[in-house]
Amino acid sequence: MTEQVLRIIPLGGLGEVGRNMMVYQYGDAYLVVDAGLMFPDSSMPGVDYIIPDIQFLLDKVDRIAGIIITHGHEDHIGAIQHIVEEIPAPIYATPLTRGLLEVKLARSGLLSKARLNTVQAGETVQVGPFQVEFFHVCHSIPDGVGLGIQTPAGLIVHTGDYKFDQTPVDNWPTDYARLADFSQRGVLALLADSTNSERPGWTPSERVVDQALTQVFSQAKGRIILASFASLISRMQQVANAAAQFKRKLAFAGTSMVDNFKMARKLGYLDIDDQLIVNLDQALNLPDEQVVIMCTGSQGEPSSILGRLSTGTYRQFDIQPGDTVVLSSHPIPGNEENVYNTINRLFGRGADVLYEAIAPVHVSGHASQEEMKLLINLVRPRFLIPIHGELRHLKQHARLGQQMGIPAENILVAENGQSIILHQDKIELGERVPTANIFVDGSGVGTVDHDIMRQRELLAQDGFVLISLVFDKYSGSLVQTPNIFSQGFILNGEASEIFDEVRRRVTEKVSRSNGNMQKDVEQLVRNYLYEQTRRSPRVFVQVARV
Amino acid sequence: MTEQVLRIIPLGGLGEVGRNMMVYQYGDAYLVVDAGLMFPDSSMPGVDYIIPDIQFLLDKVDRIAGIIITHGHEDHIGAIQHIVEEIPAPIYATPLTRGLLEVKLARSGLLSKARLNTVQAGETVQVGPFQVEFFHVCHSIPDGVGLGIQTPAGLIVHTGDYKFDQTPVDNWPTDYARLADFSQRGVLALLADSTNSERPGWTPSERVVDQALTQVFSQAKGRIILASFASLISRMQQVANAAAQFKRKLAFAGTSMVDNFKMARKLGYLDIDDQLIVNLDQALNLPDEQVVIMCTGSQGEPSSILGRLSTGTYRQFDIQPGDTVVLSSHPIPGNEENVYNTINRLFGRGADVLYEAIAPVHVSGHASQEEMKLLINLVRPRFLIPIHGELRHLKQHARLGQQMGIPAENILVAENGQSIILHQDKIELGERVPTANIFVDGSGVGTVDHDIMRQRELLAQDGFVLISLVFDKYSGSLVQTPNIFSQGFILNGEASEIFDEVRRRVTEKVSRSNGNMQKDVEQLVRNYLYEQTRRSPRVFVQVARV
Repeated sequence: MTEQVLRIIPLGGLGEVGRNMMVYQYGDAYLVVDAGLMFPDSSMPGVDYIIPDIQFLLDKVDRIAGIIITHGHEDHIGAIQHIVEEIPAPIYATPLTRGLLEVKLARSGLLSKARLNTVQAGETVQVGPFQVEFFHVCHSIPDGVGLGIQTPAGLIVHTGDYKFDQTPVDNWPTDYARLADFSQRGVLALLADSTNSERPGWTPSERVVDQALTQVFSQAKGRIILASFASLISRMQQVANAAAQFKRKLAFAGTSMVDNFKMARKLGYLDIDDQLIVNLDQALNLPDEQVVIMCTGSQGEPSSILGRLSTGTYRQFDIQPGDTVVLSSHPIPGNEENVYNTINRLFGRGADVLYEAIAPVHVSGHASQEEMKLLINLVRPRFLIPIHGELRHLKQHARLGQQMGIPAENILVAENGQSIILHQDKIELGERVPTANIFVDGSGVGTVDHDIMRQRELLAQDGFVLISLVFDKYSGSLVQTPNIFSQGFILNGEASEIFDEVRRRVTEKVSRSNGNMQKDVEQLVRNYLYEQTRRSPRVFVQVARV
Repeated sequence: MTEQVLRIIPLGGLGEVGRNMMVYQYGDAYLVVDAGLMFPDSSMPGVDYIIPDIQFLLDKVDRIAGIIITHGHEDHIGAIQHIVEEIPAPIYATPLTRGLLEVKLARSGLLSKARLNTVQAGETVQVGPFQVEFFHVCHSIPDGVGLGIQTPAGLIVHTGDYKFDQTPVDNWPTDYARLADFSQRGVLALLADSTNSERPGWTPSERVVDQALTQVFSQAKGRIILASFASLISRMQQVANAAAQFKRKLAFAGTSMVDNFKMARKLGYLDIDDQLIVNLDQALNLPDEQVVIMCTGSQGEPSSILGRLSTGTYRQFDIQPGDTVVLSSHPIPGNEENVYNTINRLFGRGADVLYEAIAPVHVSGHASQEEMKLLINLVRPRFLIPIHGELRHLKQHARLGQQMGIPAENILVAENGQSIILHQDKIELGERVPTANIFVDGSGVGTVDHDIMRQRELLAQDGFVLISLVFDKYSGSLVQTPNIFSQGFILNGEASEIFDEVRRRVTEKVSRSNGNMQKDVEQLVRNYLYEQTRRSPRVFVQVARV
């Protein structure tokens, strides 16, 4: 009989930021933690988002004992509708996280299919052979949890996203006692968030934002427009508090913001007076100095409300001089350009713009280096597995672990798909499982593969030139001059002389070619165009015989 | 007679980072300061670089009294070959800057055409009605200058890029005395660098890098590979010093690095012992712990040496475990993704990687807020014109100016093409001049316009589908089934059913269309594809009649 070991299979979030998903396997049973999405970078044109590849799980769906969601951010819940379609296992989440899952699942018509279970921080749930203890963690959304996972092979601590905020907005600090308790029982492995492993010191408390907002509200002369994530529930509370203090009414713009506000309020996660809230129409009819509007778009997404305000294309109102716009957010890596373009455009429309670089209107929700060290000292694990982050973040987390005295051979930096085997006395890499990037683009077809993505990238470089040849099917000779169609290459005006010459050369080539005519023509055109323009458009040759 | 006023026409670098170019006009005479390029952002696929639009100058070339280049970085000299082709005016630069101009002009075969003049910091040159005093400034390249421009309308101070480094690597601090002297004479306007206006405090001295390098060299067990800009001459000196101290030989990889090293050494800007330098082949044959290699690619450019090392495609050597790679640079806005991808890949190949976020291996060459304030106090200008930066940087610089007591109406934030008129007692916007983005893409055709760029962006979104219809020119009916060619949309396998239906619908439509058949077919296909896939590829219809 083979040794019963614990295997950990990372399907997302290792070697990248986002689409977090971790699978624990003991014997024949599987436990899934999180089901997130990742936003595309510039090498993925046209992609809406990226989800984990669950191919590895598809022949094991009846052995998946449960799915646990640690908190309600998109990089932890965003793939849930895709997962629910394939995996019928029960889902466990705290009330707010469950509320956000319900809003999302309802939109894709899958709410009835999902087996949702509410758990509270502090509770323990038996999920197959895994005894899962939920402990509260602070993060930039309320009701986040980390997990103590007692397995026959040992106790695992899985932090999810966390920080050690001593003065969180909801007055509910991370559960230090439980972490210390775990260390008493002996922790085999710690899987901990690496997002901020490059940041020295401590992440400031969410309360810092209160002071910044007080400053903003006390100085703004006109409307205040504050952009944030729709899921940043604690920011809603902070803005509402400032609004009450400075006698402004609060309105929300955008469906996701309104939906989440209503849900969080219903569940008791927001303590906001009825009198304070108005709808957007009412807000726009109040005097400017009595209004604050919260909206989405803090990542500079062109189609978001803030994005459209910055280009003057939002249907309901326009930015006007005197407006104060606050971006209460940190640019997600890869979004910097969009964010700064949006800020520049808002300045261009006369708004005063405040953002993280020049005012503390946002703080991170992730632990910095000193917190990561405190965590290690609290938990005292035998093995350390850095999770959540690009390779550079995981490596830096590993360096910190070594500085804390964990032997190098007890720290394992893995990437998506590299399964990890935990023995009592050693940790090692196991087999690889498939982990493609599953691109979601539109809804009809589902996913886009790498070939398509590569085609798009090449098209974007220098456009394309398509040569259409129509031959007489009997004589084999051209029925008409080669037709040229081109996009994204050069302007028709500039092109006419070059294209005339292409037509001439192709006609000549065709009459003489006795090998692969299509390939020959492609090569000829490609070479000639490069020679003339130093550009390399895609060249396609289409042949019809009539 | 109209009042003789000084006009300032910004052709680059205002409202953007890079391609700096400023034109001063007094009466009939023009003075050009800098001729830089800008690197493309992700909305400019396939573009090599962007240069200023000099349309406005083209009918005035004989009235341009001179071109002054403040220092040798690409964002100040990179467009020089394009400018020299159009403008025959004399060019003034300090020796190192001239050396870098010569290297660049020689490559494009324009060296003989350029009228280069050497000036030394401290000298004054009469250029038309402009009396230009060159004063030394510290920056991340030696031999940088700022300008005191005495015009009949008043004295202008133009900083170029600068910082107040008290301990620069070349021991030559910024010329405070000259700045104070200007203030004694009365400064009409200060045009000052805004790049770091969001950064509080002081920019650290270049010397900080010495300590970081000492740390790196004392700990590295294998080869050290240090990536930087080819123009960062002072970094070459610092690396050479560390190499000498730790008994390593220094080699340079890449033509631009080697060329600049030779030139700077010949001109006396580098003090490096002959014994210390080896060529790359020699370096690769020495024991690993006796080698340091400097190369380009600190911005993660995929075709650079570091970029190719990260993907294992550099011809001359490979990264190996034990290598220490240092990125001695700050990611240019828009390059973050490339830089971090490169870092992650280098980690993936087993190198230890050090970069700005985790070690002080680079410091900025631009003044931070406290230096910007010191400058204003030293110069005491009547008017402040923030230059060099995106709109957010210029606005933040303006805020600082106001905090220092400069009246709001004496500070003018302009963007490219908005000319500025300086009267004795007021500053105002004048007429607008054209300022397109001149995209340089390949060499044959020269520039790419916005329509082409837009076409490329659309192609990159969801690819394209091209429907070819061949009609009998007599009967007007289709000679063959519609042909479909597609790229970047969906895989052929997935597409076959959808495309079959498209062929069927198009055939039916064509037989019935009595309006604009081509438009009708396009519309039909676009709608059907969206309905089926929720994607919107470009749809083109091509018609042949045989």
